[in-house]
Amino acid sequence: MSAHKLDVLAIGNAIVDVLARAEDDFLAANGMSKGSMALIDETQAQQLYAAMGPGTEVSGGSAANTAVGVAALGARAGFIGKVKHDGLGKVFGHDIRAAGVAFSTPAAHEGASTARCLILVTPDGERTMNTYLGAAQDLTAADIDAAIVESATITYLEGYLWDPPAAKEAFLTAAKIAHKAHRKVALTLSDAFCVDRYRGEFLELIRSGTVDLVFCNEAELKSLYETADYDTALTHLKQDACEAVVTRSEKGASFISAEGIVRVPAYPVHKVVDTTGAGDLFAAGFLTGYTTGLEPAESLRLGALAAGEIISQIGARPHRNLLDLAREGGLLS
Amino acid sequence: MSAHKLDVLAIGNAIVDVLARAEDDFLAANGMSKGSMALIDETQAQQLYAAMGPGTEVSGGSAANTAVGVAALGARAGFIGKVKHDGLGKVFGHDIRAAGVAFSTPAAHEGASTARCLILVTPDGERTMNTYLGAAQDLTAADIDAAIVESATITYLEGYLWDPPAAKEAFLTAAKIAHKAHRKVALTLSDAFCVDRYRGEFLELIRSGTVDLVFCNEAELKSLYETADYDTALTHLKQDACEAVVTRSEKGASFISAEGIVRVPAYPVHKVVDTTGAGDLFAAGFLTGYTTGLEPAESLRLGALAAGEIISQIGARPHRNLLDLAREGGLLS
Repeated sequence: MSAHKLDVLAIGNAIVDVLARAEDDFLAANGMSKGSMALIDETQAQQLYAAMGPGTEVSGGSAANTAVGVAALGARAGFIGKVKHDGLGKVFGHDIRAAGVAFSTPAAHEGASTARCLILVTPDGERTMNTYLGAAQDLTAADIDAAIVESATITYLEGYLWDPPAAKEAFLTAAKIAHKAHRKVALTLSDAFCVDRYRGEFLELIRSGTVDLVFCNEAELKSLYETADYDTALTHLKQDACEAVVTRSEKGASFISAEGIVRVPAYPVHKVVDTTGAGDLFAAGFLTGYTTGLEPAESLRLGALAAGEIISQIGARPHRNLLDLAREGGLLS
Repeated sequence: MSAHKLDVLAIGNAIVDVLARAEDDFLAANGMSKGSMALIDETQAQQLYAAMGPGTEVSGGSAANTAVGVAALGARAGFIGKVKHDGLGKVFGHDIRAAGVAFSTPAAHEGASTARCLILVTPDGERTMNTYLGAAQDLTAADIDAAIVESATITYLEGYLWDPPAAKEAFLTAAKIAHKAHRKVALTLSDAFCVDRYRGEFLELIRSGTVDLVFCNEAELKSLYETADYDTALTHLKQDACEAVVTRSEKGASFISAEGIVRVPAYPVHKVVDTTGAGDLFAAGFLTGYTTGLEPAESLRLGALAAGEIISQIGARPHRNLLDLAREGGLLS
């Protein structure tokens, strides 16, 4: 039996974010659904980029942001995801390694260019995402390094990974390897529209025990069970999932397990600047606590702290030292 | 006589900034002089990039930042500078046009890649810059569109443009065209080390009247006249320059002309986050006022406001609406 070399291995789309400010009118004129993630092709990506304002490029990708958050909180994180060997691909690889995350998935030398997500941040801090998957489409089961999966306490998969067709197999391969090595598998539902695209398959993954721990926010949970009533959806989730974390923005978050529900309030935030990465960093905080032996309530608080910090700044990768903040908050020693 | 189609035409190095946080120790270990700009070659750029932390990419370049600031304040700005037709070159072109600046310099299809500046931001907010000039080296006199220079009330040149050898000729060509069309020419001294490299040539540009208006900060002014005494340096500048703007960080700024000296205090800043672009945005505010008919004191105040805003955020391109801030401050209507 191998030693646990990683606390959290995240597998997801390797994406560089291009953030720009936009007014609500711009979203309406371009038919975008505020707060959600839409998939776009290369032509649409070029058209939208030409129409949008000046950008800031920051490495992103939902699961990759979570891996960076885990490393920032002092736990051992790894990432598997596909970039091309191009300018943005080099930026992605540099940034995730410089953040202390183990990343060794080989870059593609042919095919589509590195994925990018055009993110429009409205004056209320809400982000609306438009993703061109590019090279991320080409993640396959061959990219799943069994030794790395076996070495991780938990393998964390993003629901967005269900969009690139070949990545589904990579996802299932990773889950199988993890379980065979008696490790846990977590899934984030990613986005209410993503849930809408794959409701049946996600429910099957949860009910079959392919995933042990589910992360979702209120909108995703309601979308999963096609109900407008939060309590109804929560009751279904308690029946279907082994363990789950549900986040509700300013209403706080809950951890559900066979032992019942643990709730914590949201972290106080002075001003919401940009909500990009809120869910990713909540997962990072929770997983750091979960894999390093904290109680569920403490893990939730660590998630709330990381999420509160990320929405107080621009972009989904932390500017300030998360470990120092967690220590100041008495959550980590 | 052509109409003034532009208020300010800025000519400089077209650069994409890569910003990363760094501790003071990192600067010392890499032999960097804090707060200054050093030129590096491609190999050094790769080595430094590999060693530095996760980055944020934002279009930059000193004169380009000034052009963006002028446009953000509601005046008409243009930019001339050289990128390559590569990923970063497209980012630069998109961002400056999306900011409302006229930019039509053709991108190079061969040769060095688009210039980048690796900027290390220390906890005190000070930035230390390492520039790989790349394609910016290839700006030549052929890139100076006479009709554009003739149409601009003032042509603003950055001292850094004296580094790429071929750009010197472009610089002098632009100054000649501007003066022939009875337009003004401004020069920023850019950096104390830059002044040290070209002291004799810069003094000649100023004394010969090749430039009408000089921008410098205290360190650059002292370097120009090789004195540690501010008043001595200022006396020399009054003799040599037709008009000049001298910025002194928290000590405020002065405008020098044949009519004497006008002084204004610094703009109150809550917290200095990143000083990148402070001088560039001061110039933007001053030039906006200067070319649209404000009094020198009002132009200085507009410069102080723009500089104060840019050091309160990360990067040298404004996140907030500068025109709204200037209106709230009663400086523009």
